[in-house]
Amino acid sequence: MQKLSIPKGTRDFTPCEMDKRNYIFDTIRSVFYLYGFKQIETPALENLSTLLGKYGEENDKLLFKILNSGDFISKVNPIDWNNHQLSKLTKQISKKGLRYDLTLPLARFVVMHRNEITFPFKRFQIQPVWRSDRPQKGRYREFVQCDADIVGSDSLLNEVELIQIIDEVFHRLSISISIKINNRKILNGIAEIISEEKKITDITTAMDKLDKVGLTKVNEELLQKGISIQAIDQLQPFFLLKGSNQNKISTLKNILSTSPIGIKGLQEIETIFNKLNLIPTRNTIKFDLTLARGLNYYTGTIFEVKCLNVPIGSVLGGGRYDNLTNIFGLSNLSGVGISFGADRIFDILNQLNLYPNTNASHTQILFVNLGEKGVDFILPVLFSLRKVGINAELYPHNTKIKKQLSYAHNNQIPFVAIVGSTEIAENKITIKDMRSCSQFSIALDKLINFFQYERQSV
Amino acid sequence: MQKLSIPKGTRDFTPCEMDKRNYIFDTIRSVFYLYGFKQIETPALENLSTLLGKYGEENDKLLFKILNSGDFISKVNPIDWNNHQLSKLTKQISKKGLRYDLTLPLARFVVMHRNEITFPFKRFQIQPVWRSDRPQKGRYREFVQCDADIVGSDSLLNEVELIQIIDEVFHRLSISISIKINNRKILNGIAEIISEEKKITDITTAMDKLDKVGLTKVNEELLQKGISIQAIDQLQPFFLLKGSNQNKISTLKNILSTSPIGIKGLQEIETIFNKLNLIPTRNTIKFDLTLARGLNYYTGTIFEVKCLNVPIGSVLGGGRYDNLTNIFGLSNLSGVGISFGADRIFDILNQLNLYPNTNASHTQILFVNLGEKGVDFILPVLFSLRKVGINAELYPHNTKIKKQLSYAHNNQIPFVAIVGSTEIAENKITIKDMRSCSQFSIALDKLINFFQYERQSV
Repeated sequence: MQKLSIPKGTRDFTPCEMDKRNYIFDTIRSVFYLYGFKQIETPALENLSTLLGKYGEENDKLLFKILNSGDFISKVNPIDWNNHQLSKLTKQISKKGLRYDLTLPLARFVVMHRNEITFPFKRFQIQPVWRSDRPQKGRYREFVQCDADIVGSDSLLNEVELIQIIDEVFHRLSISISIKINNRKILNGIAEIISEEKKITDITTAMDKLDKVGLTKVNEELLQKGISIQAIDQLQPFFLLKGSNQNKISTLKNILSTSPIGIKGLQEIETIFNKLNLIPTRNTIKFDLTLARGLNYYTGTIFEVKCLNVPIGSVLGGGRYDNLTNIFGLSNLSGVGISFGADRIFDILNQLNLYPNTNASHTQILFVNLGEKGVDFILPVLFSLRKVGINAELYPHNTKIKKQLSYAHNNQIPFVAIVGSTEIAENKITIKDMRSCSQFSIALDKLINFFQYERQSV
Repeated sequence: MQKLSIPKGTRDFTPCEMDKRNYIFDTIRSVFYLYGFKQIETPALENLSTLLGKYGEENDKLLFKILNSGDFISKVNPIDWNNHQLSKLTKQISKKGLRYDLTLPLARFVVMHRNEITFPFKRFQIQPVWRSDRPQKGRYREFVQCDADIVGSDSLLNEVELIQIIDEVFHRLSISISIKINNRKILNGIAEIISEEKKITDITTAMDKLDKVGLTKVNEELLQKGISIQAIDQLQPFFLLKGSNQNKISTLKNILSTSPIGIKGLQEIETIFNKLNLIPTRNTIKFDLTLARGLNYYTGTIFEVKCLNVPIGSVLGGGRYDNLTNIFGLSNLSGVGISFGADRIFDILNQLNLYPNTNASHTQILFVNLGEKGVDFILPVLFSLRKVGINAELYPHNTKIKKQLSYAHNNQIPFVAIVGSTEIAENKITIKDMRSCSQFSIALDKLINFFQYERQSV
């Protein structure tokens, strides 16, 4: 037998796994609809001219590139070939790539369809993306992103809605989370008042480790990175920031009073918390000054979600970007969005065994096949069951009952129907409940009622 | 502004198009579930060792191949490079490709997961496939296939079920179709009795044109292809075959009486029709001797569906293959399956405007934003509406009402809620029905009832 495999970092999903994944996607999708988001899809294939140079040089290497079809050699410059000019050659033999995320395709979509779109554009998108990353636990080369973004509105009500969506989705999935929010403008303000604007990435990277390594180590790292002692001194109040969200905001308003951008960021985060106070939420929402995700990308609010019961990294990220479509030359469109990490959520639900037991898509009843005469009796019965929406099957072969019952068992079919000559003569059906192993007889014309009642009682 | 485009033969789908596509996929999926099929998904990326050599040399050229990441040149043999050995070079710089259909991935899946699968394995799969075909009307380079197959059962009851599924899906979509069936064994029988086994492809290709070009031209073509005059004479009764399905079967039983394989095929098709007679079907099912789809692939029943109202080619194909997993070394697994052409169905529904008017995923009500005070009043109201599953939105900006109403109009939101100072004082909401342009006032505590009633009356 040929030794078969699938590419590293990719996965097959069995029916049982698909049930679980559909449960996650359906949950997220229905909450997106609840908040008025509309679905789009974009092709897996994008032109490399769209993709390259947008994610940074290192990430460009992670793009999957498609070999040109036909005579791909004919466009190769022999000099580049002889000089081993990888990146030049790549462009000569490849014009297309697989999408790397859903944000850049959104930007392209918005620019190309700007005349058909009604702004604010609330779009969601649930599609796979591909990254030629080194595969490791919880990291795949082909994985699904679930994004919701509002494009063309700088209102903070959008941030409030996105937090409500996060809260609702994880509530429905029974996953306890902590929602962290921060604002890029506050980080800019901090860098401004300590006069280290250029070192902002080093500062936030170090701050991010505060929980893990402690204050002393963080200060050491900052010193190593060339931050002045005076600046490090000025940073101490930020590191020591404690208390409620409102306390933190008040403290920072004092410290950042001379930084207009810092104050702007604080006002934004305060507005968000004020609006959230008007609505019930189930999970903690925490202002976390150390949160800095993709700093160069976001310009306002930053979101991140951690699962409280499973140590698995973040399960959602997002934020506001004022310049989404600028890279394609369309300015003045502010956007804000979130991206659910469906594959990590899948792992969490598996680990905590949080999937619902019932599944409306499963077969409700299997008719055992006892031969020609029974089959002819069963076919119209099957038709009438399916007509009212009851998922039903007939075993295709007249084989040992044991084998047929094990088919029902393995496929988690709760009821098995047995139709022998007695049943045919008396117009009834013997039903075996696979869960209780009990058995009973039911008149043919009561069968539909039975299943409709079963369905309601689930 | 950068000139943006997407690769030839690919498409973006707008929210309105997604509604339509989801309607098609949901319809097909729910019928698959009704008949006990279980969903799987496989990665878009497959190893080229799995894909190459399975679809024929011409089709191998249509595979999208992924350029190896990292230093792809290092594995190139300079001699092959200098000699322009395209196919050798391709294998040296590319190890992965995009899936070309869902049948080969199914075969790979079944072989790799054979120890976990309960046979008969009724699986469905709805995923995109990629083909580097020349793009043209109705033909795309990235398109979705919707496949249902039963693997590991040679029972003809599977064929009966698949025909029922076809009948049900197109009935639900309100598309009138003609279902054509044939059997490869009958075609083999014909070739056998006229002693032209090797010319079977030429014969069926010519037969396929009978409707279009007429008998004389078909006979001319056969002569050109080197079929003997005697054989062409013997073929005439097949060409002239007319009447009901049962008539055709009876006639053929006489003509093919000396061909065991031909008789086997006729018995199979007769069994299928006999079982179908026990069940209501809405569309015509026609035994069509000229149907030969992918002849080298199928070994028994062959299916094809044509739309009766739009001339668009076939909207479904399928058949039985006894050797699905043989290519990977696992024998004795007979399979039978169908593949819905979702993109052609999409085109038909667009052309005939057969989409349902209502869509449960759409926003039911937009709250107009008249400023801070109203927003604070509305936020908890929105929460309670969403809590009972009513899709609702608040316009994020306090801008001109006209603009907000046009947002509702463009997004087909049926109701707009206006909350001014009077409404807040009296705890009520003014609702504008966007379809009738009528306006009325409703107490806050009656709002949920109103929408639940609206939903039921749809």
